[in-house]
Amino acid sequence: MSVSTAAADQSVCTPLPVLGRDVLVPLVTGGEVTYAALDYAASAPALQRVWDDVAAYAPYYGSVHRGAGYLSQLSTDLFENARRTVAEFLGCRDGDQVVFTRSTTDSLNLLAAALPEGCQVFVFETEHHASLLPWRDARVTYLDAPRTPEQAVRTLEQALADRDPYGPALVCVTGASNVTGELWPVRELAAAAHAHGARIVLDAAQLAPHHPVSIGELDVDWVAFSGHKLYAPFGSGVLAGRADWLQDAEPYLAGGGASRKVARRADGGVDVEWHTTAARHEAGSPNVIGAYAIASACKALTEAGFDGLVAREQQLVAAVRAGLAEVPEVRVLSLFGDDAPRVGVISFVVEGWNSSHFAAALSAEYGIGVRDGLFCAHPLVRTLLGSEPQAQGECGAPEAAPGEKSLNAIRVSFGAGTPDEHVERFVRAVKELVRDGARWNYRTEDGRCVPDTSA
Amino acid sequence: MSVSTAAADQSVCTPLPVLGRDVLVPLVTGGEVTYAALDYAASAPALQRVWDDVAAYAPYYGSVHRGAGYLSQLSTDLFENARRTVAEFLGCRDGDQVVFTRSTTDSLNLLAAALPEGCQVFVFETEHHASLLPWRDARVTYLDAPRTPEQAVRTLEQALADRDPYGPALVCVTGASNVTGELWPVRELAAAAHAHGARIVLDAAQLAPHHPVSIGELDVDWVAFSGHKLYAPFGSGVLAGRADWLQDAEPYLAGGGASRKVARRADGGVDVEWHTTAARHEAGSPNVIGAYAIASACKALTEAGFDGLVAREQQLVAAVRAGLAEVPEVRVLSLFGDDAPRVGVISFVVEGWNSSHFAAALSAEYGIGVRDGLFCAHPLVRTLLGSEPQAQGECGAPEAAPGEKSLNAIRVSFGAGTPDEHVERFVRAVKELVRDGARWNYRTEDGRCVPDTSA
Repeated sequence: MSVSTAAADQSVCTPLPVLGRDVLVPLVTGGEVTYAALDYAASAPALQRVWDDVAAYAPYYGSVHRGAGYLSQLSTDLFENARRTVAEFLGCRDGDQVVFTRSTTDSLNLLAAALPEGCQVFVFETEHHASLLPWRDARVTYLDAPRTPEQAVRTLEQALADRDPYGPALVCVTGASNVTGELWPVRELAAAAHAHGARIVLDAAQLAPHHPVSIGELDVDWVAFSGHKLYAPFGSGVLAGRADWLQDAEPYLAGGGASRKVARRADGGVDVEWHTTAARHEAGSPNVIGAYAIASACKALTEAGFDGLVAREQQLVAAVRAGLAEVPEVRVLSLFGDDAPRVGVISFVVEGWNSSHFAAALSAEYGIGVRDGLFCAHPLVRTLLGSEPQAQGECGAPEAAPGEKSLNAIRVSFGAGTPDEHVERFVRAVKELVRDGARWNYRTEDGRCVPDTSA
Repeated sequence: MSVSTAAADQSVCTPLPVLGRDVLVPLVTGGEVTYAALDYAASAPALQRVWDDVAAYAPYYGSVHRGAGYLSQLSTDLFENARRTVAEFLGCRDGDQVVFTRSTTDSLNLLAAALPEGCQVFVFETEHHASLLPWRDARVTYLDAPRTPEQAVRTLEQALADRDPYGPALVCVTGASNVTGELWPVRELAAAAHAHGARIVLDAAQLAPHHPVSIGELDVDWVAFSGHKLYAPFGSGVLAGRADWLQDAEPYLAGGGASRKVARRADGGVDVEWHTTAARHEAGSPNVIGAYAIASACKALTEAGFDGLVAREQQLVAAVRAGLAEVPEVRVLSLFGDDAPRVGVISFVVEGWNSSHFAAALSAEYGIGVRDGLFCAHPLVRTLLGSEPQAQGECGAPEAAPGEKSLNAIRVSFGAGTPDEHVERFVRAVKELVRDGARWNYRTEDGRCVPDTSA
């Protein structure tokens, strides 16, 4: 595997302090309990360190790249230093650009807008919609879901061998699945792409928060990730990597900051000279706080010892998987099998249960926040469930009949801020719900499955 | 005028508390002074209330639209309530959509991407680049700078009368100039646009922070503004207005959140069913904190009494203009003349001074943050200066020879958080610098004009 899990003998970190760790939520059955945030794969809480850095900076906030004042210059330096911190965190090569976007989705849409004319795109159907859908102006080849990492590489090699060998091509692949948490063979896929003259972008939305990522070591051309999954939920994301396609592309957004010089022409039109640096694709006033928050998170993860965080997360993964394995009604979703290395993202279905109903009971009766649904990866969930997935959120029958096929799934996910107790509570809750059923009635309201408190 | 200034007899607010009001900055001449943030037109400090609201919410942050947990549902409600608050703040009509973007620039690029086939766009050359440049796929008519509001309306009417009457058309106009602060006759321009079957979008980036804006009363089709100029610098902006073009357009970003259903086709391709609500253009996890911050700012301005804030800002405008009028070397830039109503944004040049040098001295010797340059409105600044504008930031000669044409300008801007002392200090500083010259030497470093501390 190109991205290996931590060795057992590495030192294990304690959980990093995050915002919301003491938040109490009401239980429908009475009383309150600390909230167990187990939906990190959707969005992670802010690290306390990130919040503290943002709070310390906020009074010094000023416009960047634009002002003559002290705080403007301080903010400009802080913003550009954030870029350097991210470059270091990702192991960028000389000449790589770091563009601040608003999210992974935005980063991949930016890259899609920067594809050279006639570019072919290769993407597995197993990708998150953010990786699957942005390539609207390209010739896209969707690759069937592989059932082993080796099959993924072979599938890609075959598709690339069959491609028009003369035009540009891009492969887009996730580092860790947002549904199964399984790691993809990124380095091998990168080698296959390059062997066939294609480039590769790594969707690291689910990988970067859970595992060190090195552009150089993985030999990928670009990496995209989101701040809000990396413990820095302030509206920023990153696209980092090779400068050439980005420099040659039309600016992603047209506006100030991206334009170096604008002048009317004699014929009444307008001539624009665009920047060729990252600013080319960052028109408008940058989200300084968002970028700074990402840089703060990068530093916090590095300084805490990322390998130790990985080791601890693997303990949690093992605990959840062991707990779920003790419940015969639970089926964990997997492409690559039980032994595949994975991050702290686990999806499953429970025989006889509607997933939305199960997730609602975890929340209302145990104070546990997970996600139910299709996880913005419909084709993958369809493949994993073997059924036609349906709209999420509605209760359906309180408990679906045994043997009935699941229409959506439940996902539990965690990371650097997760205490043991959350995972322990989750395993206990699953066992109790399956054994005893829900203690409350639920009904569908505004498309959500919620406790029925009308009685 | 469609947007009138406050009547003199209205009650006048005191400044609203903002972050950074107690920040001390060093003076090159020795000692420290509280920072006078007079670059609101670039980016305004956060209202204390906005910060407090964000800080109170941050521990409750959760993924929106996606999670079954308590905090996810709380965050979803908060996000959708923010949308309603913004709609109310802007006086939206039934059926209008409020899309959260990252900035005004992003909002206008979104609208540009949503233009119907063959749309003609009409835009004055006097616009900020964010309004001037996004219309890349349209047939754009750039209108010459008018010298009165009436001329603006006549110029637009003439251009629309000459247009192809059968296709769709859009007018894009600012509410208040980011260079002169002057108010544009928005209601009259909207009436002209509609009389000719065109639509109109209001760039309210500089208007919304300084003046109530009502989509309904102005009868514009869309309004765009940025949080970071509205005392909520957390990476969000807004496009609000008519739903039809937005519903009919391809999603701005392709990804999760915007897609309702995604499925492989039998031929190997992918079918996507997109949302038709605002979510259509908000793919990716929304910036919940950014949207909430904007809603908090909207509430804060409304509850403080926006008319009273306008009245106070007008006092500051009058004080700055009166002070500058006492310095014969100062020329205030204006399209519409001395009597034109305006917000707290004033640009000027100083005879015999390089503007970057002047701005650097205001910062280093008085702790005042203004902006020098071309303000992302190159054609307008060229018109106002009567010269070929040049790259900003470099010192040039310490004091340009008298009579030499200015290559760029200085902009002072302020708003709801500005205390009298900042404006008083600014006026005193201008007078002293013009009378006595700078007390320090300056040099160009990395494209910035900075104090020369090498001696």
